[in-house]
Amino acid sequence: MGKRIVIALGGNALGRNLPEQMQAVKQTAKAIADLIEEGHEVVIAHGNGPQVGMIQAAMTELTRSDPEKYIPCPLSVCVAMSQGYIGYDLQNSLREELLDRGIRKGVSTVLTQVEVDPADPAFRNPTKPIGAFMTREEAEKMVAERGYDIIEDAGRGYRRVVASPRPQSIVEIDSIRDMVDAGLVVIACGGGGIPVFKTEGNHLKGAAAVVDKDFASCVLAQQLNADCLVILTAVEKVAVNFGKPDQQWLDSLTPEQARRYIAEGQFAPGSMLPKVEAAIQFAESKSGRSALITLLEKAKDGIAGRTGTAIAL
Amino acid sequence: MGKRIVIALGGNALGRNLPEQMQAVKQTAKAIADLIEEGHEVVIAHGNGPQVGMIQAAMTELTRSDPEKYIPCPLSVCVAMSQGYIGYDLQNSLREELLDRGIRKGVSTVLTQVEVDPADPAFRNPTKPIGAFMTREEAEKMVAERGYDIIEDAGRGYRRVVASPRPQSIVEIDSIRDMVDAGLVVIACGGGGIPVFKTEGNHLKGAAAVVDKDFASCVLAQQLNADCLVILTAVEKVAVNFGKPDQQWLDSLTPEQARRYIAEGQFAPGSMLPKVEAAIQFAESKSGRSALITLLEKAKDGIAGRTGTAIAL
Repeated sequence: MGKRIVIALGGNALGRNLPEQMQAVKQTAKAIADLIEEGHEVVIAHGNGPQVGMIQAAMTELTRSDPEKYIPCPLSVCVAMSQGYIGYDLQNSLREELLDRGIRKGVSTVLTQVEVDPADPAFRNPTKPIGAFMTREEAEKMVAERGYDIIEDAGRGYRRVVASPRPQSIVEIDSIRDMVDAGLVVIACGGGGIPVFKTEGNHLKGAAAVVDKDFASCVLAQQLNADCLVILTAVEKVAVNFGKPDQQWLDSLTPEQARRYIAEGQFAPGSMLPKVEAAIQFAESKSGRSALITLLEKAKDGIAGRTGTAIAL
Repeated sequence: MGKRIVIALGGNALGRNLPEQMQAVKQTAKAIADLIEEGHEVVIAHGNGPQVGMIQAAMTELTRSDPEKYIPCPLSVCVAMSQGYIGYDLQNSLREELLDRGIRKGVSTVLTQVEVDPADPAFRNPTKPIGAFMTREEAEKMVAERGYDIIEDAGRGYRRVVASPRPQSIVEIDSIRDMVDAGLVVIACGGGGIPVFKTEGNHLKGAAAVVDKDFASCVLAQQLNADCLVILTAVEKVAVNFGKPDQQWLDSLTPEQARRYIAEGQFAPGSMLPKVEAAIQFAESKSGRSALITLLEKAKDGIAGRTGTAIAL
């Protein structure tokens, strides 16, 4: 009996540049096709760190080359472009892999916006570095001209930081649901989605922010009433005392146990912590829902209960 | 009784840069919402000339700034990015306009690939200029390093030219059809679609080409079994002897009449000619199908038979 599964792909599933991405998506497609072949309904979300960084750097170079002609490109537009770039490669390789296995199923990428709350405390404390390193002079110019928040990265220069607010809801959820119901494989919420917030009336304004793809996937999975949220990363299981002599791999976790480990500081912020937090949120959202954290190539075994770390009530 | 309509948006519907596009899509959304309000099923395709030019220029600047780190970005990837950029603005403004009118309908952009024939004669004679002007030295470097085709544009410098092959079929057609059947408003085939061709097996390879959005819209309309193909442009009607004292606006044309005018050289290549050719192809593809060429703001009146040039058997 097939499950409805939302997969959150990590950076290793996509590579860090154009040639790496073309290679990486082939392995990613195999892992996802394994799940589709077993009869699961699959919706794919993914990150975009290196890709949106590249696009933002390119748009910055363009403005530098001709400031009269090209105004700075908003971050939300860069995220939209990254959804096009990554979605194209991903849907292509998945389409090919499915056809090679004799599976005729449409694969489509949907541009996705994610609503955030302008009162989210993250906007008062931007922490997510984005784009290229700058000199001190360039950084000061950006602060003066564009109001950017800047941090100094010891020894490597200055970088823009943006907020990473929590996603509230997926704007295109009805479309995504209709597509999944029609039997399509959908790629959505690329890069955590294009962050937008409501202003007056029905207007949505792009936010200078990036949404964590694990939290966006969690909201997507809830709104699609998925059975399982699969967060794919660079380790097969979650560990406590990671990298220490008493390191211990975890097969399963209740939300309560996971919270205890979080309180102990077991999981690295910006790395394993958001994954475990998203997994808890999904597992607690409705009875019968479970989350899984594992390696891309272990997704099939993990769904079958043979490996990975399962987070469930 | 509502019709199924494919709309091809011209350049004036989108503007030529970031601020122009944000303004232009508001008017475009009103014109499209008018048709949806009347009960028509609407699928939207659009061009991307200035947008893909901007993205290609940005990616070129990025490679210039750090050739070790950034390889040149394939044109197919730039087209994919432009679908993200334009689709985001367009779906957003259309969503807002529909909600303002109390219409709850999902609007979604689908990344779309269009299959072209590698034996298309267009590949032997690339004519479509793309990207920024170059100096003679830069142009010669591009020819030597990347095998680009280059033309000299009198007095303005050198530009890359790419092929503009005819679209054969829409790769994501099943997804688009399912979405339309589910009642969604779909934006597809942005920039004429990402041009790809079949290589070995089921692999699709991106082509260094751009597909004319009018021809792509025509194939999309045929594959969706649409009733009407609406090509929106900068004039209310097609004219013969355009700009001359005996200029004559045309209310309707049979494919036969249209072909006679084409033979007389009445329509400018790269401008009205592909629109009329696409309109003929659609009108002849099946009994009962008609094409309409008119202004964006006259789309509603045109569909109602009050203006524009109708091309039908």
